[in-house]
Amino acid sequence: MTWYIRLWKFVTLAHGAGGKETEELVRNLIVQKVPPELWKVGEDGAGLDALDDSALIPLGGGRYLAVTVDSYTVKPIFFPGGDLGKLAASGTINDLLMAGARPVAALDAIVVEEGFPVEDLNKIVESYVGTLAENRVALIGGDFKTMPKGQLDGIVIASMGIGFTEHPIVDRNIRPGDKIIVSGYLGDHGAAILAAQQAVGVDLGVESDVKPLTDLMLPLLDRYASYIHGAGDPTRGGLAMLVNDWAEKTGTVIVIDEARVPVRPQVKEYAEMLGVDPLSLASEGAAVLAVAPEKAEEIVEFMRSLGYEQASIIGEVYEAKDPRHRGRVLLRSVTGGVRILEPPSGEIVPRIC
Amino acid sequence: MTWYIRLWKFVTLAHGAGGKETEELVRNLIVQKVPPELWKVGEDGAGLDALDDSALIPLGGGRYLAVTVDSYTVKPIFFPGGDLGKLAASGTINDLLMAGARPVAALDAIVVEEGFPVEDLNKIVESYVGTLAENRVALIGGDFKTMPKGQLDGIVIASMGIGFTEHPIVDRNIRPGDKIIVSGYLGDHGAAILAAQQAVGVDLGVESDVKPLTDLMLPLLDRYASYIHGAGDPTRGGLAMLVNDWAEKTGTVIVIDEARVPVRPQVKEYAEMLGVDPLSLASEGAAVLAVAPEKAEEIVEFMRSLGYEQASIIGEVYEAKDPRHRGRVLLRSVTGGVRILEPPSGEIVPRIC
Repeated sequence: MTWYIRLWKFVTLAHGAGGKETEELVRNLIVQKVPPELWKVGEDGAGLDALDDSALIPLGGGRYLAVTVDSYTVKPIFFPGGDLGKLAASGTINDLLMAGARPVAALDAIVVEEGFPVEDLNKIVESYVGTLAENRVALIGGDFKTMPKGQLDGIVIASMGIGFTEHPIVDRNIRPGDKIIVSGYLGDHGAAILAAQQAVGVDLGVESDVKPLTDLMLPLLDRYASYIHGAGDPTRGGLAMLVNDWAEKTGTVIVIDEARVPVRPQVKEYAEMLGVDPLSLASEGAAVLAVAPEKAEEIVEFMRSLGYEQASIIGEVYEAKDPRHRGRVLLRSVTGGVRILEPPSGEIVPRIC
Repeated sequence: MTWYIRLWKFVTLAHGAGGKETEELVRNLIVQKVPPELWKVGEDGAGLDALDDSALIPLGGGRYLAVTVDSYTVKPIFFPGGDLGKLAASGTINDLLMAGARPVAALDAIVVEEGFPVEDLNKIVESYVGTLAENRVALIGGDFKTMPKGQLDGIVIASMGIGFTEHPIVDRNIRPGDKIIVSGYLGDHGAAILAAQQAVGVDLGVESDVKPLTDLMLPLLDRYASYIHGAGDPTRGGLAMLVNDWAEKTGTVIVIDEARVPVRPQVKEYAEMLGVDPLSLASEGAAVLAVAPEKAEEIVEFMRSLGYEQASIIGEVYEAKDPRHRGRVLLRSVTGGVRILEPPSGEIVPRIC
């Protein structure tokens, strides 16, 4: 194996936090083991080489299948603004939408601890199924297993999504000149979970933003598919991880205007109190888009007309003039200074999603 | 909710064992919540209404997408004959093959406990990826998360598979007259895990049969697709669960000839010693087929020519003359007597797959 093994003998919380360490582990421990010809299906498919929110398989005739899978382990399972079921359904739907796909079906694999209350399971399934149904996504299969008492803390849901598109969105299409747009307040989910995990109850007055973005993304894709070069939902690792990912994948420099990033004052204060960068906090109902500059203002207006009133242009993609700057994200702060926005590392919040 | 909730307040090991209770829980707690029009995609698709090994989505032009997802929690993660990685890859591939599909891609969602040895993770991933690669199945995406120490016993892998077919196999096509064929010895996986889970080491001299059935099923599908009316891998709940499922779904009576079911003598003895029906023990590298009678002998010969030397006709599907017998499985015992083979219930082996 690689240098990786030499550095780490045991898996840490940071490895699963969705930041830099997760990316390193996935690249070194998983991607490297797969022969490159098996990273994707079809010449113009997208798979391990892309590591986007969904993988894409060409079906011929310009049609693509989008597929995604994630495990959800959030704690507490019922939190302000949502629960594990809504989280799993929303995450699955959003991952498909961010690939430019129309979500059509989901499958779930549920593992629960022996002794888990049937009433709680019932509520979670109701929420999962209900969220899918509201978005006209079929539930076409699944799996159910139990682990003996003491071997699992509660419940884990793996949720898989299937969608179709003729205009796939893949991060590698992001290019210099593109404007970066966010659909609304960032970090609400992360802050809400963080507060709910405190032993002493913290009433932040902020709920998780968890929701499927179907009502935003389907109209956007209908109208502007060819102008949207990149789309992602800033879940684990937040905006900081997402834009660093984009910059790295495309070898560009992304500049974010801190003053224009919508973050609720309570979220900002709470994050600062805990010494966490609010831009690293997860959202579960927000989209970040990279769009052609000539349509950026119009797209923001359209998003606002759909009820996403905080939609804003928050930054821009630049060509890296100096090769040493390739893949960097710069944050232009409120005071005018510029600093590097690093991808988050370390353990931010365990079991956030 | 239903009567279910009244009977059970807490989830039990039996609910996750893949027998009768799992089916009841899935039907009452999950399927009932999904509006019937969202049980499947497309008029001739297969989904929650079918509860087959894979769901099927019609793609037009006679082509179908097959998709499956399962969570794997086996304990111990390294066992005689295999490990968690090989189990997850084989299970995913086999579920696609049993739907008549050619497996093309997989995605995985891994959750590990903080402190899990990177070396073990490395071995498991190597085995998972290696098994996929040997079968020319691409790994196109995934997810990695960590749960804090004490919240998960080791590692859980959710594995999702994607395949394509023009001749889908769905259980509802099984009909009176069909012969039931098995590809080889049954119950090896269940017996091997059961022995490995004993505190005192039991050397059964039997390894798990875990393996992808690509080398069996692809040639079979090429030649005999239209004669294979049903296919399944007898994993949790073993042959007993699988054929009961088939009989129930089709309202037929299935008669199994006990003397013709290939079970290793050690497996039979060990199961009897533990008071377990060997026909309820899981296999992870065996196929059960329901085939048109006129081709049954030829298909068995062909299977043997592919190296599956124990392939045998073990039973037949009958029309239920008496409506009270619909969905029953009868076991014709070695001594000539006939008894009802019930679907397994209760907790057989926890964390078998």
